[in-house]
Amino acid sequence: MRIAELSRTSGVPVPSIKYYLRAGLLPPGERTARNQADYRQSHVDRLRLVRALVEVGGLSIAAVGEVLQSLDRRGDLTRSQALGTALEATLPTDTAPDGPLTDAARRTVARLSEERGWTIGLDTPVAQNLIARLASLFQFFGEDAERLADKYADIVDELAEFEVRWSVEPEDTDTAVERAVVGTFIGGAAFEAMRRLGHADYARKHLGQ
Amino acid sequence: MRIAELSRTSGVPVPSIKYYLRAGLLPPGERTARNQADYRQSHVDRLRLVRALVEVGGLSIAAVGEVLQSLDRRGDLTRSQALGTALEATLPTDTAPDGPLTDAARRTVARLSEERGWTIGLDTPVAQNLIARLASLFQFFGEDAERLADKYADIVDELAEFEVRWSVEPEDTDTAVERAVVGTFIGGAAFEAMRRLGHADYARKHLGQ
Repeated sequence: MRIAELSRTSGVPVPSIKYYLRAGLLPPGERTARNQADYRQSHVDRLRLVRALVEVGGLSIAAVGEVLQSLDRRGDLTRSQALGTALEATLPTDTAPDGPLTDAARRTVARLSEERGWTIGLDTPVAQNLIARLASLFQFFGEDAERLADKYADIVDELAEFEVRWSVEPEDTDTAVERAVVGTFIGGAAFEAMRRLGHADYARKHLGQ
Repeated sequence: MRIAELSRTSGVPVPSIKYYLRAGLLPPGERTARNQADYRQSHVDRLRLVRALVEVGGLSIAAVGEVLQSLDRRGDLTRSQALGTALEATLPTDTAPDGPLTDAARRTVARLSEERGWTIGLDTPVAQNLIARLASLFQFFGEDAERLADKYADIVDELAEFEVRWSVEPEDTDTAVERAVVGTFIGGAAFEAMRRLGHADYARKHLGQ
């Protein structure tokens, strides 16, 4: 198909398609004339993924590039390595600044890990990210936030198990990796939207709004 | 205190403070000389809130302005109105585009509301936001996403009850509103970070990563 049809089929405007092509997020079409190229269904699928990561996942163009690289590299990897690489590429990398709040957050993550048998080291990016976020929570709410963190941990244990099992259901590794990466962002956004509705509903019923 | 001390105490750089002052996110200090003003503890608290909403909540300057207005208006409101107004100001306002995916997402939200006794109308901003996010999920995963939505609803019912009850614990309305608004964003970010750690932990244990 030509670029105009690719735009109609995917719902992505032509200028955005050209931008993604220049940024290397979309492989070039097959050149058919001087100013013309032919695109396939695989371009439609890839565009759908790019748009979701940018618009729903809120990823930068550089971060989308990393996710796509990890998706495209997965031929050399085992299934679980492919999943791990793709999910790691999408992790926020901010480290918590040194200080008493970060120390407190680190102790909380260590305690939760001990109590729940979490196996992720405290110096990994995913744990550092959690420590940074908990440090912000402690900054506002002090030790009142400990109870929130405990509740979150109860819930996360259940949610993460369900989501990972759901991601790896498909036998095809491509599909499993797409489920894991896209589910992390699109699923996370849907969960967050439902949480907001849950707040509104509970407040309305029990606070008389 | 002078602006330099306000910066040291709050950890916010002087140029950012000046920007927030110009944008009206921080009330002016008391003028003490031609180029000098005096700031108080209330400025430190407000800066902490602004920075959290911008950096952790990811809100635009305009959205932060709306949240602060609703906080500052709360004197005229009942406690539950104040909470509701503050939380509504922070809602994303994108509506789902018309189409079969949105229709399917709307049916799912109607079904969940019916099954769970949710009382929030489908045309409210909070429900529209959920419908838009679910439509994205359906776009990728079709009816496989229904099971995710059901699991999310189980978990949200428990999480939202806990969070709202935790928010309204303090007798002081100021503190309750701060808990609700800040907890929505900072708590949400901490939950999301813990979810990512939960994925990594479960994948490592059960997929042999």
